[in-house]
Order: sequence, then structure tokens, then C-alpha cells
Amino acid sequence: MALITFLSDFGSTDHYVAAIKAKILSIDASLKIVDISHDIEPCNLAQASFVLKNVFRDFPPGSVHLMGVNSSNTPADIFLALKIEEHYFVGNDNGFWGLISEEDANEVVKLKTESDSVGSFPARDILAPAAAQLANNTPLNKLGEPFQDYQRMLSRKPKATKQQISGHIIHVDHFGNLITNIPESDFNILSKGKKYNLKFGRENMNRIHGSYKAVDNGDCFILFNSIGLLEIGINNGNASQLLGLDFDSPVIISFED
Amino acid sequence: MALITFLSDFGSTDHYVAAIKAKILSIDASLKIVDISHDIEPCNLAQASFVLKNVFRDFPPGSVHLMGVNSSNTPADIFLALKIEEHYFVGNDNGFWGLISEEDANEVVKLKTESDSVGSFPARDILAPAAAQLANNTPLNKLGEPFQDYQRMLSRKPKATKQQISGHIIHVDHFGNLITNIPESDFNILSKGKKYNLKFGRENMNRIHGSYKAVDNGDCFILFNSIGLLEIGINNGNASQLLGLDFDSPVIISFED
Amino acid sequence: MALITFLSDFGSTDHYVAAIKAKILSIDASLKIVDISHDIEPCNLAQASFVLKNVFRDFPPGSVHLMGVNSSNTPADIFLALKIEEHYFVGNDNGFWGLISEEDANEVVKLKTESDSVGSFPARDILAPAAAQLANNTPLNKLGEPFQDYQRMLSRKPKATKQQISGHIIHVDHFGNLITNIPESDFNILSKGKKYNLKFGRENMNRIHGSYKAVDNGDCFILFNSIGLLEIGINNGNASQLLGLDFDSPVIISFED
Repeated sequence: MALITFLSDFGSTDHYVAAIKAKILSIDASLKIVDISHDIEPCNLAQASFVLKNVFRDFPPGSVHLMGVNSSNTPADIFLALKIEEHYFVGNDNGFWGLISEEDANEVVKLKTESDSVGSFPARDILAPAAAQLANNTPLNKLGEPFQDYQRMLSRKPKATKQQISGHIIHVDHFGNLITNIPESDFNILSKGKKYNLKFGRENMNRIHGSYKAVDNGDCFILFNSIGLLEIGINNGNASQLLGLDFDSPVIISFED
Repeated sequence: MALITFLSDFGSTDHYVAAIKAKILSIDASLKIVDISHDIEPCNLAQASFVLKNVFRDFPPGSVHLMGVNSSNTPADIFLALKIEEHYFVGNDNGFWGLISEEDANEVVKLKTESDSVGSFPARDILAPAAAQLANNTPLNKLGEPFQDYQRMLSRKPKATKQQISGHIIHVDHFGNLITNIPESDFNILSKGKKYNLKFGRENMNRIHGSYKAVDNGDCFILFNSIGLLEIGINNGNASQLLGLDFDSPVIISFED
Repeated sequence: MALITFLSDFGSTDHYVAAIKAKILSIDASLKIVDISHDIEPCNLAQASFVLKNVFRDFPPGSVHLMGVNSSNTPADIFLALKIEEHYFVGNDNGFWGLISEEDANEVVKLKTESDSVGSFPARDILAPAAAQLANNTPLNKLGEPFQDYQRMLSRKPKATKQQISGHIIHVDHFGNLITNIPESDFNILSKGKKYNLKFGRENMNRIHGSYKAVDNGDCFILFNSIGLLEIGINNGNASQLLGLDFDSPVIISFED
């Protein structure tokens, strides 16, 4: 019996989250469901993918991840079960899957639906039963027909030259810390002992710290975080508010010749 | 061993929710507790009943539902355990039970209390132990004396004539969608191929959609939702804010002769 | 197998909470984790300690409490496992432990870390594995070296004379109720049938009620709550907002001669 994780934009004031758990537990009351978050902004696939991408591999291989955030622009009602990097996923065919992994899915099926119409609560009626079955070791290919042409959006990469890495803020966390798409590996290849300048908003800085405690309260820290990405914050403060930066703001590292 | 669900207005910043779970798990650490919501507005029985009414039947029969929202107007400190539609409930004698089901309770007892005073945290001291005992198959009639005269508030029904259904918004969900008390069954009986006009706020519309994706982003959709009620929303928008409608706003369907 | 509880300021929109649960469940998927709260204000040790102090004893003895709130002023990266009052705790050496209990820890160890650097996510990398091991009955002294000089902040006590008890608001709960640090026991010793005056903000009152229902809607109640502390609230209202009082506001009881 595998773990089921659950990520959505359903919030905490309605019956939606509980309805999906009830469906899973009605199939097998011994299944274990771990909430990832239900406070993703409505339809925000970028935020949802950032969260799931950075945690799904921490669960045991074989875990089943139920993804209840959908884009309002998803054209057709196609629901998928996928195997990616030894984990199972169920959700919409909305391009999300390209954002959480660069690897091809090992296997993808289009979930069977009981009728032509999917109803108005497919996360409960289609995704929850599929997740319960996968957690109870039903093979993926029993849940539907193979489906190769699933949509895959691509993560925005930083641009790197010998002189410069040009990236963006891809997530503002609960503390107001600003997480960029600039990976430590890119920085290490290009810096090689050179001096550098980091530019974001109105700030210019020329060092990266080992820890947020390396600076005084109220000062700005820059570090490579636990997921290997450049992160900007204010010790004991909200960097997003104090620096006036948000999702998508540019961050540029220039290297001296 | 049955599931215990837990609904309250206790919020997420205090020790209240955990104290109740601790009490249940101290009685039997193997019990499974599923949160419905703890973000019901303080003392809002209408919101609490909407949420619980629409999800309790999704749990397996025999599940125990702990209801920690109380009205500040409840006169006496009477605590009940009830069996309604093959489910168990524990909570106050505050009229709530008439809002979640139109059926009579199969059985109701007034919960025994250890002293005359109920203390200042009865959800922990009285409801939690009762829920734990019911989940462990203690018969309802062992928890207290039969109690017939429990209070029952009645849900507000729409008024229907051959010409018109006149209802109200009974819930605004996390997405700002407006859920009315107009059931699909009433509509089907009265519409019978007639043209109709829907009026809410300043809007007049003359069709009901099959899905919220039937309209463009920013446009208004009207559908019968997964619980069979007329729902009004804005695709990719917050209908409550954009239309200026809230709990209790009227929604009227007029049928052509 | 003991229960693990989890308290943090990580909020509900990131992967942080799930990453720690994933770590624990990867060590042993059968472990049971109970959330206390993840909505503690960032770095607010006073709020975190109020919440944990008032609930940890409700869990079975031997439970393991993971405490993920850190002060931004914590000088060194020292992580502890402690046994206090038959419960286990893991967290930073940030003074927090003096706030939740007046008893000395039975045993304290400094947790072993795999490298000199603690990384940027020690709650996941250091605290989560320690909590999992303790829950699976690994003896505390296998997790690190004894550590006697852990920091202990002290709770602020009210000042009491024969004429007066002078205390403060130490917690504003979700309902806006104001919880003070004035214990019922102090009041009982000093009051002994004397008349008294309670002063807070612009209010003067001369009685303590048995229950919040002893007053009408909109009126102010004062009672000794389920944790034995003087609590001020407004029946069906938000006392913090309506009285203009907050954390740290003074509350004074004067006794007649």
C-alpha cells in the first residue's frame, strides 16, 4: 500500500478537499493521505508545479500524487495517470507534467470515465478512485488506454553566457523569500573565482552567503537553498514586500572579465 | 473501527484543534481523524451545515462526525450524539441537525457529563471522548439518556410556482462561485422546454451551461453542480466580487408562458 | 510506535511542511503525524510556546513533538532532542524549552549532524529523522551527545501583592479572545471574598463570569478558561479588535482592603 499525496487550489472553507478524501477512504479506509497544500492560488499551475516538483521525490518511490489544480484554459476534459521517475501522478492533461520533471513519463494512460460527460467534480469522481487504485498496486495500464500525446509545458530557464546569467523569480514563499530559477551548478561553472554583481530591483550585491544567519536582522541575504536555487531574502523580514519584487521579477548575475 | 471527521470554527493558529485530536488519540491512538474544515466563520451554522451536508454521505456509513461549531445563541449546554442516515454525529443541541438532513434522527442521546458544569472546552471534554467511543463501536445508547426534543432548524427552500422559482445564494465557495438553493429537479419539472430568464444582481441570462468551460475566460457560467444545485460563477474569476453578490442574495428564474 | 506532532511557522503555500512529513514517512511509512499548527507567525516563539505548552500534555506520554519555529536571533546552529515531563521534543537551542515547562529536562542531547554545515533546511534534514527515530523507540542518548547548557527563556509572570495582580495578555486567539498570564490559583489566594476591580484598556469590571454565555451578545465576558488563565472576550464578537487590545497589553486586578 503506497502513500497518496494531495495538492490542490480548493482552499480550506469548502467540502471539496474532504469529499476527495472521503472518496479515497470509502474505497479503502486504510489508505494514508498526506496533504501537500490546498492553498495554491486558483488555477496557478506555476505555483503548483514549483511546490510539487520540490517535494515529490522526498516521498517513497511508488507514492501516488493527486494533483487537483487545473488551468481554466485546459481545452478538453482529459484526465491522466502517469508514471514519472518511479512516482505515480493523476491529474488533468493541462501541460503541468512538463513543469515538474524534465524526464519523459515512463507510462501514461488516459483515465476511463464512466460516461461521456465528466460531471462538475472530476477530481472526486475520476482522480480520487484512480489514486486509490494505484496506491493499492493496480497496474497503471488497467486504468485506461495508453496516451502518448500528453501536453508538456516547459519551465522557463535562465539565460547564461560567459558574462552573465539572466534569470527570474519563480516562487515567493510564505516568508516572502524570493526563489529564482538560477541553479548553483550554472553559477559554479561560470564564476570560477571571478568577481560578480547581482542585480535585482534596485539592489546591487557582490556576494553570496552561506546561510541567512550570515547577515544582521533586516539585511538582505543571498544563498543557494536546499533545492539548489539562488534565493534572496531579508533576515527576519519579508523580502518580497521590502524589495518590491514578486513572481517573474528579473535577477541578473554579471561576471567580471 | 470507524473514521472520525472533524469540522469546526477553531481556525489554525491555536491549540484547540490539536487538543481535540490529542484527546481522541489518547483514548485510542489507532483512530483515524479526517479534517473537514476548521475555517468555518465563527459561529456560522449556515456555512458549517452547507459544508457537512454535502460531504458526510461520501464517508463510509458508520463514520462519526464531530461538529465543533456552536451558535453563540445556544441557550443551554446540552450535548448530543445522534444517528442520522447511518452516520453518527456529536455536537451541541443548537438546531444544526435539521440543516444537514431532512430525515429524522434514528436515535438521539444527551451525552453524559462528569459534573454539572460543562467547563470552558466541552468540544474536548465531552464531544471528543464520545466520538472516540462511537468510532470504537460503543452503542449510542451507552453514551447517555434518550433525548427526543432536540432542536432542528430548517433549511430555507426556494419558492416555486408555474411561472417562477425564487431562491437565494446559500454558499460562496473559495473560488467565489455562488451556490444557490435552487435544485435541478425543481427546474426540470417547471422548465419542460420553455424559455426562461435567470435574474441575479444586475444580470439577466437565458441559458444554463453544461460546464464552466462552456464560456470564455471572464464570462459568466450557470450550471447545475455536483450536488444538484444551481451555481453561478465566472470562468477564471471571482463571481462574488465581480457580480457584487453574497450569501443570501436572491436568484430568480422566470418561465415564459 | 509513538505519535509525532508537528508545529511550525511554515504556512500552507509551500512544500516545506510536506517535505518534513515525506522525510519522516520515508523512514517509516506507518508513523502517525498530527499537525499542531503551521500558522505561527514567522519566528514568533512566544506564540509557538503558548500553543505547544497548552496541548503537549494532552498527547500520550512518550509522544514526540517536532518544533520547527526558530528565532532569527538564534546565534548558533545547535539542534536538540529533549525529554521533558515524559514527552520528547526536537528543535533548536533557541530558548524555547523554558517557555513550555518550568521543569528541568530529564535528558538533553545535541543532535548529531552528518557534516559541519547544517544546510538550509535543518528541520527536514536533522529534526525529522530524529523525530522518526524517537517515535520508533530509539533511546534519546543514541541521537547525540549529552548537552547540559541548553538555553531557557523564562515566561513572564504576573506580579502579585495583597492589593493587586498585574499581568499581561499573552495570546490573542482565533476568535479575538484575550488570554492573560493571570492564573486562577493566584486570584483565589488573594481574592478571598474581597471585592475587586479588573482594568484592561478603557474598561473597568468587577466580576468574573462562569461562562461566556453568562453575558449577552456583544457584551464582555471574563472567565478562567480551560487552562486556568484569566480570559477576556466579547460574546459573539472579536475582543481584540473591539477593545483595541493585543499581545502584551496590561491587565490589572485590584482588591479592596
